[in-house]
Amino acid sequence: MKVKPGTGAEFLDVEKPVPKPDEALIKVEATSICGTDKHIYFWDEWAETHIKRFPHIFGHEFAGRIVEVGSQVKNFKEGDYVSAETHIYCGHCYQCLTGKPHLCKNLKILGIHVNGCFAEYLTVPEKNLWRNNPEIPPEVASIQEPLGNAVHTVLSEDVNGKTVAVLGCGPIGLMAIGVAKAFGASKVFATEVSDYRLKLAEKMGADFTLNPLHEDVVKEVLEKTSGDGVDVVLEMSGSPEALKQGLKILTAGGRISLLGFQPRKVELNLTRDLILKGVKVYGVTGRRIFNTWFKGSRLLTSGLLDLKPIITHKFPLKKYRKGMELLNKGEAAKIILIP
Amino acid sequence: MKVKPGTGAEFLDVEKPVPKPDEALIKVEATSICGTDKHIYFWDEWAETHIKRFPHIFGHEFAGRIVEVGSQVKNFKEGDYVSAETHIYCGHCYQCLTGKPHLCKNLKILGIHVNGCFAEYLTVPEKNLWRNNPEIPPEVASIQEPLGNAVHTVLSEDVNGKTVAVLGCGPIGLMAIGVAKAFGASKVFATEVSDYRLKLAEKMGADFTLNPLHEDVVKEVLEKTSGDGVDVVLEMSGSPEALKQGLKILTAGGRISLLGFQPRKVELNLTRDLILKGVKVYGVTGRRIFNTWFKGSRLLTSGLLDLKPIITHKFPLKKYRKGMELLNKGEAAKIILIP
Amino acid sequence: MKVKPGTGAEFLDVEKPVPKPDEALIKVEATSICGTDKHIYFWDEWAETHIKRFPHIFGHEFAGRIVEVGSQVKNFKEGDYVSAETHIYCGHCYQCLTGKPHLCKNLKILGIHVNGCFAEYLTVPEKNLWRNNPEIPPEVASIQEPLGNAVHTVLSEDVNGKTVAVLGCGPIGLMAIGVAKAFGASKVFATEVSDYRLKLAEKMGADFTLNPLHEDVVKEVLEKTSGDGVDVVLEMSGSPEALKQGLKILTAGGRISLLGFQPRKVELNLTRDLILKGVKVYGVTGRRIFNTWFKGSRLLTSGLLDLKPIITHKFPLKKYRKGMELLNKGEAAKIILIP
Amino acid sequence: MKVKPGTGAEFLDVEKPVPKPDEALIKVEATSICGTDKHIYFWDEWAETHIKRFPHIFGHEFAGRIVEVGSQVKNFKEGDYVSAETHIYCGHCYQCLTGKPHLCKNLKILGIHVNGCFAEYLTVPEKNLWRNNPEIPPEVASIQEPLGNAVHTVLSEDVNGKTVAVLGCGPIGLMAIGVAKAFGASKVFATEVSDYRLKLAEKMGADFTLNPLHEDVVKEVLEKTSGDGVDVVLEMSGSPEALKQGLKILTAGGRISLLGFQPRKVELNLTRDLILKGVKVYGVTGRRIFNTWFKGSRLLTSGLLDLKPIITHKFPLKKYRKGMELLNKGEAAKIILIP
Repeated sequence: MKVKPGTGAEFLDVEKPVPKPDEALIKVEATSICGTDKHIYFWDEWAETHIKRFPHIFGHEFAGRIVEVGSQVKNFKEGDYVSAETHIYCGHCYQCLTGKPHLCKNLKILGIHVNGCFAEYLTVPEKNLWRNNPEIPPEVASIQEPLGNAVHTVLSEDVNGKTVAVLGCGPIGLMAIGVAKAFGASKVFATEVSDYRLKLAEKMGADFTLNPLHEDVVKEVLEKTSGDGVDVVLEMSGSPEALKQGLKILTAGGRISLLGFQPRKVELNLTRDLILKGVKVYGVTGRRIFNTWFKGSRLLTSGLLDLKPIITHKFPLKKYRKGMELLNKGEAAKIILIP
Repeated sequence: MKVKPGTGAEFLDVEKPVPKPDEALIKVEATSICGTDKHIYFWDEWAETHIKRFPHIFGHEFAGRIVEVGSQVKNFKEGDYVSAETHIYCGHCYQCLTGKPHLCKNLKILGIHVNGCFAEYLTVPEKNLWRNNPEIPPEVASIQEPLGNAVHTVLSEDVNGKTVAVLGCGPIGLMAIGVAKAFGASKVFATEVSDYRLKLAEKMGADFTLNPLHEDVVKEVLEKTSGDGVDVVLEMSGSPEALKQGLKILTAGGRISLLGFQPRKVELNLTRDLILKGVKVYGVTGRRIFNTWFKGSRLLTSGLLDLKPIITHKFPLKKYRKGMELLNKGEAAKIILIP
Repeated sequence: MKVKPGTGAEFLDVEKPVPKPDEALIKVEATSICGTDKHIYFWDEWAETHIKRFPHIFGHEFAGRIVEVGSQVKNFKEGDYVSAETHIYCGHCYQCLTGKPHLCKNLKILGIHVNGCFAEYLTVPEKNLWRNNPEIPPEVASIQEPLGNAVHTVLSEDVNGKTVAVLGCGPIGLMAIGVAKAFGASKVFATEVSDYRLKLAEKMGADFTLNPLHEDVVKEVLEKTSGDGVDVVLEMSGSPEALKQGLKILTAGGRISLLGFQPRKVELNLTRDLILKGVKVYGVTGRRIFNTWFKGSRLLTSGLLDLKPIITHKFPLKKYRKGMELLNKGEAAKIILIP
Repeated sequence: MKVKPGTGAEFLDVEKPVPKPDEALIKVEATSICGTDKHIYFWDEWAETHIKRFPHIFGHEFAGRIVEVGSQVKNFKEGDYVSAETHIYCGHCYQCLTGKPHLCKNLKILGIHVNGCFAEYLTVPEKNLWRNNPEIPPEVASIQEPLGNAVHTVLSEDVNGKTVAVLGCGPIGLMAIGVAKAFGASKVFATEVSDYRLKLAEKMGADFTLNPLHEDVVKEVLEKTSGDGVDVVLEMSGSPEALKQGLKILTAGGRISLLGFQPRKVELNLTRDLILKGVKVYGVTGRRIFNTWFKGSRLLTSGLLDLKPIITHKFPLKKYRKGMELLNKGEAAKIILIP
């Protein structure tokens, strides 16, 4: 938990939270570290802008068991094995009323605007609870949330029989490779500057892995697609160079989905790269509630997707510092913490 | 070839056809027997209504090499390795002008309205030619056409992470099982009265195979889908009982695609099964030209789909009688004939 | 209200209902009679099967003002001008969790499974409340619910620049004519056996009105569409003859949406009418929550749609008997009752 | 016609062109000036890069009658009243084979890469001919091509009941206003720096017209949409400021379609404006062949759209200089030239 602005975090004893009438109290069995948590831990510009409450328990990816429910909770009970959609939506804005609660105007995010799951217990509103399939063990169930980002991005439109390039192989990019293959992408290209991650990309099923530091991504992709380029680009890196390569390797009439945050403004040649090529661009955030969760869960239980190669480390919660350091050095993909 | 109405067919020497200016002459390297060909051979009611020209060479699934091109042919040349879309569309009706040539009002079909490919040579209009990927051997390339029916039916809408029931495991049903798995169906149920074919269904990747003669399909499917039923039903059998089961196991808001011809009218409870359940029904015929062909070809070359379990026999063309008998007894799936 | 099974209904004094914690108590300002209410009043087979509670207040289309809210209600308050989505969904079944609450497995319907709005007051759960645009007067606001059925049916897919046939000109069919025109249908055909209603169809903007008792619907429609038939058929009559005509006048690749309940099973030639024509069939029930409500409301406030021609009568609530009789004789479209 | 690079154009006698076997020779009855023609006439940077052949007849919007057909032309004959799709596609690239010929890799454009229609006669390949509805007079029929751009842009997705902002009221922007209203947009905002054009925007049905030089577009639009912003933005101006305003007034989950060429690269805040808002961006060029043409034609013949307010001038062809000057001064919308 953060007790004040600045790098680092404390491991402190706090009182067990009390669930509100529409909330459940959950005992955390496994939690995992997201890139966002790294930002909060190392206190970069983004964290400074977004984290305003102290003391603040961060972390938002988890699996656990309900130990208590509030008086208005109807469909969950003590003992249920759950995870949670982290976008706490208002339910009454235009976006919420028209089937897009993930774009809610009054959005609160678990572990950012309210206390999160780097703890023994947390509370979550009933409407955000997801009943885990018991076949999925807690450490995998805890990463269904970022898996949902991958599924959401891959499925902006279908990838059936399509050629796909995944730009950036952080944990969500790695998941997107596996998801794209599971949903029938005929060829998946993965680009990434870290060779450690490129190897994981291969394990997740990438047909071609390319390191833009050493290889000419545009040339390679065009060569392997008869000069047509790929049907689909998934931008997961947040790098402007990757984005520009993505637009070059995208076939006319193709689509590009953007999930990776670009830290700065990007200069684009819209006429050449979007308009004359009839390209579609999807900005992607969050998950479709709960369509995406069903798809993620089914991928895991059907054997179509195996996330184990991505879970590179597992520590007790109090060794969070080590996890943060490893992530910072790029020597890990997904790190599970056990409270 | 049929020389007159009635059961059977002759194997005769005919003159090599001469391509028109917009056609190519093709030397057939492999051809396969379609259910339609069986109808024509055994001369059932359908054949009597549809086959009006004699002598008539039937057969429409093939792979071969171009040996000559007409004067207006621009994009193909001698030596090209090709198959063909069998729907010869007019190009100027409302359907053709709005991107649905497979539903052309003036449709002619290869091997039905014009001479087909149960022969050493045939002619095909350039606009119907499909350039085969050289990695696909002729016997597999020859069944891309029915594979296209399977792909078209599976992809009426996506199947990503969805539960699917394939009703009827003739060759196209069997292909549909493999296609649905390749495109990310989380569970595939297959129903079929022939145990021979149910075994092939398993080889194609069906998660559950059910013989409606011995098992309660509706009960089994509901049990294995938490009582929800399946998201997608693919009706490939042409049996009214199967169709009715399909509507019962379909979840509210799901979709059912109909490819199998129903030989007679069917009585349906539309209010209960379609309207109150908010169901979508797709009638499916032919293939999207050439979107479906790209998807089929990529399934085959990417390793996502293996059709070999379906190719149960391979004979010289003149042994066509044996092939027809085997198909009639239900002891074969796809039979390849080599001229 | 119904005090017992059988034809008719009583007008009785009852206690003002008390809202539950998640409900609002509403003073009804206008309510309108739906075809369903007619079934309940005249106690036909459908009513006998569906209405099981007595005494029962029926009626489900209304506009009114909130006079009291339960303790958990967050986004509505006393004085708010509201109507209600009548499908009370559970929120936790597969359909509810994947964006299709109108197809909820545990659906309760206002005025059928719980008390309705043919009364001075009713209670409605907060999640079903719709905030009315103040520009819409209560008698029009009360028919937003059936308007939603029309919008939902018209928009199974878009109708932009398409030719449309509306089969059956009851109130929802009449609304569908106006909605189709407002959303850019290029030609709207309306069929109906009552000349009284055909005249209303003209007022709602139908380009061609046809009485199947006196005119050859199929011939007329084909003639006026260059032999192509219409792109879209909306079946609102519940008549099997109309449905069969609809399938004949539908162009290959077109879509037909079914809203009208077919009281009996219907025999269909699926091979000829659906499969070989590549037709899509949509079963439609309820409304998209709340997408459809936004569209309906905006149609009314933008001037794109005027429902006044459909509101043929307005009575005090206690004159409900007269309203039911008029409807039964087919001498009314929409009747408003004022409590 | 251009005889050499540089500003201006000559009016010269040339020989009547001879149609190739797959072409028709057309006598032009009306032609109209496109923004592209203005670029060619005044010889800006774009013209210098794209016009490489001299002498070159430019112009590509027209209506006329066929006076001769080549030997392979099948579906058109002397006397037919036609216009033409100006994107001459190859028919065999990936885009052409998958239903996107408007994005053809080997695209040639009438009046740019081959001789156009600022002439008494021109030749056009049969596959590009569009049979005009005889109810549409030549001066209106000649502007179906740019109308197609408007229809294509408006219909990247439907606008039914949606709020729409059209940025830039050149001829295609003006058409887009009318098209959006005809297809059921509930409110249309139009922005434009020229008051002359804003008045035309009003005539075309814009509900609100805003001049960004004098009004705060973002503030006005947000105020008139309850703070939600619009569902749809159509960028037709090519101005980076307009684009940025467009992204600000777009509601979360909305879509923006880009048709106006941005002459320079544009710097965008993708994280804030696309990703976190879940926005879709469509690059749009050309027309869907021939879906868009059907829609345009039906809009004109159904009375849903009246383009007359946009046809501000009509001259004999040889007065082309005057037309170009008027357009350059912004004192005209669409100018028709009669050869």
